[in-house]
Amino acid sequence: MPERTPLAEITDVTPDAAEFLSDFAEWSTFGATDRGGLHRMAATTAHAEARRWLLGRITASGADTRVDWVGNAFGLFEWLPGEPFVLIGSHSDSQPDGGRFDGAYGVLAALHAAVRLDRAVAAGAMRPVRNIAVVDWFNEEGARFQPSLMGSGVHIGKFTVDEVLAIADRSGTSVGDALATHGLAGTGPAPATAAYAEIHIEQGRVLEATGTDIGLVTANWAVRKYTVVVHGEQAHTGATSMADRRDALVGAARVVLAAHEIPGAFPVDTVLSAVGRFHIEPNSPVVVPARVTVDVDLRAEDEPTLEQAHERFTEALAAITADGLRAEIAACALRPSTPYPPAGVDLAEEVATAAGLSSRRMRTRAGHDSINLKDVVPTVMLFVPSVDGISHSDREFTADPDLCHGVDVLTGVARRLVTERLPGGAE
Amino acid sequence: MPERTPLAEITDVTPDAAEFLSDFAEWSTFGATDRGGLHRMAATTAHAEARRWLLGRITASGADTRVDWVGNAFGLFEWLPGEPFVLIGSHSDSQPDGGRFDGAYGVLAALHAAVRLDRAVAAGAMRPVRNIAVVDWFNEEGARFQPSLMGSGVHIGKFTVDEVLAIADRSGTSVGDALATHGLAGTGPAPATAAYAEIHIEQGRVLEATGTDIGLVTANWAVRKYTVVVHGEQAHTGATSMADRRDALVGAARVVLAAHEIPGAFPVDTVLSAVGRFHIEPNSPVVVPARVTVDVDLRAEDEPTLEQAHERFTEALAAITADGLRAEIAACALRPSTPYPPAGVDLAEEVATAAGLSSRRMRTRAGHDSINLKDVVPTVMLFVPSVDGISHSDREFTADPDLCHGVDVLTGVARRLVTERLPGGAE
Repeated sequence: MPERTPLAEITDVTPDAAEFLSDFAEWSTFGATDRGGLHRMAATTAHAEARRWLLGRITASGADTRVDWVGNAFGLFEWLPGEPFVLIGSHSDSQPDGGRFDGAYGVLAALHAAVRLDRAVAAGAMRPVRNIAVVDWFNEEGARFQPSLMGSGVHIGKFTVDEVLAIADRSGTSVGDALATHGLAGTGPAPATAAYAEIHIEQGRVLEATGTDIGLVTANWAVRKYTVVVHGEQAHTGATSMADRRDALVGAARVVLAAHEIPGAFPVDTVLSAVGRFHIEPNSPVVVPARVTVDVDLRAEDEPTLEQAHERFTEALAAITADGLRAEIAACALRPSTPYPPAGVDLAEEVATAAGLSSRRMRTRAGHDSINLKDVVPTVMLFVPSVDGISHSDREFTADPDLCHGVDVLTGVARRLVTERLPGGAE
Repeated sequence: MPERTPLAEITDVTPDAAEFLSDFAEWSTFGATDRGGLHRMAATTAHAEARRWLLGRITASGADTRVDWVGNAFGLFEWLPGEPFVLIGSHSDSQPDGGRFDGAYGVLAALHAAVRLDRAVAAGAMRPVRNIAVVDWFNEEGARFQPSLMGSGVHIGKFTVDEVLAIADRSGTSVGDALATHGLAGTGPAPATAAYAEIHIEQGRVLEATGTDIGLVTANWAVRKYTVVVHGEQAHTGATSMADRRDALVGAARVVLAAHEIPGAFPVDTVLSAVGRFHIEPNSPVVVPARVTVDVDLRAEDEPTLEQAHERFTEALAAITADGLRAEIAACALRPSTPYPPAGVDLAEEVATAAGLSSRRMRTRAGHDSINLKDVVPTVMLFVPSVDGISHSDREFTADPDLCHGVDVLTGVARRLVTERLPGGAE
């Protein structure tokens, strides 16, 4: 793991920056792994501990806490009673053995940004026309409960509360029960939302490779997530003749390799794909598998490219089906590529430039809660650099100066969102 | 599923045969699946119910019950106090969604054979020089707890009681705890063993294809069971550039295909291989897998052939390692091909012929508890036909007349083993 930049090496370390880094170190302890990562799956003990710490910090900063019906947590700075809120935040759940920056950084950056603005309001240094709230969306990762972007999906009306609470993990525990068990369930609606801003690590190499401080996200990549089921026939690994076998795992292996080979047919870094998860039945050492469920993730920088990749993939599945097995697409969710409001990108660029930081416009490959929010309100999405582009791993790393610059830019963006009315979204 | 032959269609259905088929129908209800199979994994509720029924039947037949420290169950017909026992039996655990004949048939056939001999002794129609005991070995299948052939392995001293009781399943439950939870734990040693006989379904097509009633097993195939661990690097399925990925599941898929292709390089039905089980870490839909543990089963009719297959497999693994991943053989258990005592094969052939049944000598591809027993005592292994060679599946089937002929031959073999002293084994 890259070494954490010692505080002493940061030039011009402000009291605000020092406070943020100290808080971030504490925030990273809940679900910490031996190798500096986080194992903080949604609605687990570690996640609940992190959430309690966050709500305590919100209260200590003088804001009101609220948790909605699907476990989204808010810290409300209600300067103007009755006015809607600009939300700023991200998510505190992680992937299994994930990194400590993905999501967690954005939530804490938002809290620090909101506190800075609150001090400015108290000091009479700014006049908001909106309130501000920090948000920690529930289950962004989708590692334990699918789909991902769950809490923000409910917030924008893409899913209903009831359908989300009924979703179960592989062991049969529902979202509703898991939230209740860990004291993560809330009782109210989310606050009325006027705009949204989020900052996140890039999870790619672009900012690092180009020596850029801040990424200004203009659109998300197009994504297809497939559930492919390969049907074979259960048999004895050590007795059944090879000619009599219909080995579902052999078919599933071909699905993995087919998905892996697709990006090679396109220009570098325009298509990505992988299989992250298998469910093998019966998964016994001496049984030829009867059925394998395969989760395929296929992404492309734009939709026409994704559709070409999709065509290649479905052709590959047809070839596997022809081999005595049957590979069916049981589910296929499409996340289209859509733009972030250009006015927000311009605004964020102005804030970065004013802070003396370099920035560049780019698309996000990964999903973020802001992808949901931008469908309904003016939304700004910011990136800070990721070392070696590594993410969803305990080797995920962003240097302290980059973290601190990000908090500064988010603060500046949030200041403009609460003092101006940004066009775009559904507002 | 093939139709079960109605009782009325069996010519010369004896009262003994009718009693066996009626018992077998009842014995098949514990852990029965909707499609006529069995889901009766070792040390589960279904297994415990089956075991209680068996012990009840043993007691009702006038024999003593005993369960040893590792959950092997015995029904002791002790005609000659202090004399050792000829054991006859098999196992009552199944694979997940397995068939109702594999193991279960051999246990019940043994009980019926012993009862018939006990009646003959009581009637003064035979003079034993040994006692007889029915045995239901614990965890032959190795589906939940590895290794397979567990109870018989302890019986012959291949494993110690303590090491077996400490073995845990994937959820961390130990054999000792699982036995205790389900009332399957015993308190004593196994009875002194003079010889062993077992009858089983063939799980292949040879008897059916050649129109043979009884298989006389002369030796077992050579087997290697590998635990291969493919090491990659955890990453984001949707953000990390393809060039930066070290996808362990891509490596594991190549292991599956490499294992699958090996038999094609050898004469038909001389080599078999498959991967039955994966353990993927972390197994989340949006994480490129860091590590996959792969259980590979490779078998050949003799050891020189197995060694050639082994060489091909290790070369294939080396090629995967060269591709930026590391595939290591974390464990490799060798089961050598060894002969059953020829005197036992001759004896069984004589019994079959005397009963008017056809028989042929053959090797067993699958593992059986008799493979362990033959290392220490004179041992006879018999097969009855399997329809279409299907096993470890709810489509596993053997017709009633074949089941009944098998009980008759096992009875004849057991009669000779208790009235003569068969040479061979360690006795």
